[in-house]
Amino acid sequence: MKTALAFLLAARRCEIDDLERLALSCELVQAVSELVHQLQRERGASNVFLGSEGARFGPQREAQLLASRAAEAGVRSWLKRPELGGEKSGGAVHGGARLLTRIALALHALDGLPGLRGDIAARRCRPDASTARYGEIIAALLALVFEAADVAVDPGVSRLLVALFNLMQGKEFAGQERALGAALFAAGHPAPERVQAILHLIDAQAQCFRRFEGFCGDEVLRQWRALQSVMPLAEHERLRRMLLASTLGSALDPALAEAWFDCCSQRLDQMHEAEVALARGLGESCARRIASARTEAQDQAALLEALSTAAEIRAPLDMLIGTEMAGEGAPAEPAQGDGPFGPQLRRSIVDLLHAQSQRLQAMSDELDAARAALDERKLIERAKGLLMACRGLSEDEAYRLLRQTAMSQGRRLAEVAAATLALAPVLGRH
Amino acid sequence: MKTALAFLLAARRCEIDDLERLALSCELVQAVSELVHQLQRERGASNVFLGSEGARFGPQREAQLLASRAAEAGVRSWLKRPELGGEKSGGAVHGGARLLTRIALALHALDGLPGLRGDIAARRCRPDASTARYGEIIAALLALVFEAADVAVDPGVSRLLVALFNLMQGKEFAGQERALGAALFAAGHPAPERVQAILHLIDAQAQCFRRFEGFCGDEVLRQWRALQSVMPLAEHERLRRMLLASTLGSALDPALAEAWFDCCSQRLDQMHEAEVALARGLGESCARRIASARTEAQDQAALLEALSTAAEIRAPLDMLIGTEMAGEGAPAEPAQGDGPFGPQLRRSIVDLLHAQSQRLQAMSDELDAARAALDERKLIERAKGLLMACRGLSEDEAYRLLRQTAMSQGRRLAEVAAATLALAPVLGRH
Repeated sequence: MKTALAFLLAARRCEIDDLERLALSCELVQAVSELVHQLQRERGASNVFLGSEGARFGPQREAQLLASRAAEAGVRSWLKRPELGGEKSGGAVHGGARLLTRIALALHALDGLPGLRGDIAARRCRPDASTARYGEIIAALLALVFEAADVAVDPGVSRLLVALFNLMQGKEFAGQERALGAALFAAGHPAPERVQAILHLIDAQAQCFRRFEGFCGDEVLRQWRALQSVMPLAEHERLRRMLLASTLGSALDPALAEAWFDCCSQRLDQMHEAEVALARGLGESCARRIASARTEAQDQAALLEALSTAAEIRAPLDMLIGTEMAGEGAPAEPAQGDGPFGPQLRRSIVDLLHAQSQRLQAMSDELDAARAALDERKLIERAKGLLMACRGLSEDEAYRLLRQTAMSQGRRLAEVAAATLALAPVLGRH
Repeated sequence: MKTALAFLLAARRCEIDDLERLALSCELVQAVSELVHQLQRERGASNVFLGSEGARFGPQREAQLLASRAAEAGVRSWLKRPELGGEKSGGAVHGGARLLTRIALALHALDGLPGLRGDIAARRCRPDASTARYGEIIAALLALVFEAADVAVDPGVSRLLVALFNLMQGKEFAGQERALGAALFAAGHPAPERVQAILHLIDAQAQCFRRFEGFCGDEVLRQWRALQSVMPLAEHERLRRMLLASTLGSALDPALAEAWFDCCSQRLDQMHEAEVALARGLGESCARRIASARTEAQDQAALLEALSTAAEIRAPLDMLIGTEMAGEGAPAEPAQGDGPFGPQLRRSIVDLLHAQSQRLQAMSDELDAARAALDERKLIERAKGLLMACRGLSEDEAYRLLRQTAMSQGRRLAEVAAATLALAPVLGRH
């Protein structure tokens, strides 16, 4: 009995350890969300700088670099936390090998920043190329947040991480829309397939924000709706309409590129407010869960202590433990089958054990439900991987192929991804 | 870059730690599988002893108790392993809180054994009650094996655990069939619903063995098929037919109870041979996975070492790490965007990172596939829990209700469980 209770308490302790590791991952996610926001601003400023041949946004870009570096320092200082140091670093991060690998990939992507910034400062790269390179770095950071959401152990925290990932991903699509739209206005007569890509980005944002709204919780949702009332939505939709009208022959006014950029930037900044609120809610949710798990564990320990003391009056616990397997009929083995605890105490311990087991199972079910919201992206990632392996495409080419197929067939990207995976045997491998 | 590589290696180390914890859980599962077998034999011997008013199987039962206690000592000695000791016990068990809670429940169930044995020795309980009490203890041990399969982190090991759980569960149904059949033969004119229950046990065994065969791997499958050729299948089927014929009015010959019991016991012993082979395969599979993960980690570490050395010739690594965020144009930030590693080395590190990430994702997908085989049981457990909460039934009553509904409607138990869960809002809660 004592051993059973020891394992019950060990399970509680293990749960608290898991939550503390999860809280640590959430801090990383918060720092990453701030860094993504700063990099999106840096990408925007760099585009104007490059597009104007260095004539505009030079000082703004320099100021933005400081903010980006501060945000990057925030992420890197998390990685230097003592809990992560030394030989045991693996164990301290919740989610283990998968999250650690994503951290490695994100750090590797960040290592490309100084080179990219050097190229931009010397105007050695075109706005398109700069956008794509920032996009890759941001994608690696988003993949880290995705993984953190996928490996989270607490349903409530997991739901908020799913919401945050979708908000960040939707905002990144909005950032891509800003860059592409600005280029289209500047071009005056854009190619129809580039305008098509705007449609895809609008659709992708809508999907992300729908999922975000489904998981962010009432308070953040209220805040999000309030933010939307101050977003320049009407102006944004008017400019979007002009972009689309260009496919029917009307020329775009290059002078509107700036209005488009400002309007989109304002929208992105307001999305960031929701991100900050959500990230704060995430931290609070972790702290609350840890506090309540600690209280429950203390209550349980006190109850078990009381039960043990009550039992000791009737038969020394240690005797039971020592002689349990010594043979039938030994003095410490009462014949009534209840051990020294008596039917009632025994009953309450059984209840405690079953309640814990059912609670953990229910949590695991809720977790699965939250995680299911991540399945679509996994499908798309897998289909991309398949196309890269079978067709020798780059990641970006694979994604474009899937997206074009979806657009031309009027199907959702996830459907095309599923169909692609179903064809795996046909596609074969190189 | 150095930090990215450090996290790549940390991910590997984390994977190896996970596998070592999994290997430890597999040792527990092996010990539990031996204990379940001995308890099934003890239950059988106790039934004959009780059924014969203590006239038969007294010495056999005493001998069996020694074997059962040895097997129990095997389980308990696992629990006293130094890796599990002290404050940190939670972290050492893979699967964390859920597996630890199942261990607590199993230990608690085992604590009821001395009392049950005392009742049997003093012939204070009937064979039915004894069967039910042994059944509860064995169910708690099976739930532990189920949980170990559900939380396993390696797809190959997980498949073997799914196979072992299904073999053990199928064998337990076979054990219940032995007990019930012996009682029916002894009764002479059994009630039709008790014969119905035999049909259910036959069906449940078939389902378990089908899943076992799907997951046990080629070698164990060959062994299993070979074992079946020496199982007393024809005799067993003949006796089963007699049991069923009793519902049409033919009386059962109580003298056949013993033939039935022997025939079933022989079959159970042969199933145990497959269990032992599978448990051995499980241990070997863990050891192989750990060895190969260690080799891969060493290869990777050596490769990274070589890459770092190559890089150090061109630019001191520490300078990069130290000055990365110091500002653009600092000497350690080469403008070509490849850092001190050069495009080729940088490429091979990216490949390494992506390969690891894809491997982990593929493993996670395979794991999900293996785990899906456990979903049916989870449905049934959840439906049982719902009925217990809403109808105030005991676990056994809830199970009987589901089973009877399934039998009377000719549907599978899992279907009825799913339908029950879908009705949750209608059933309400007390």
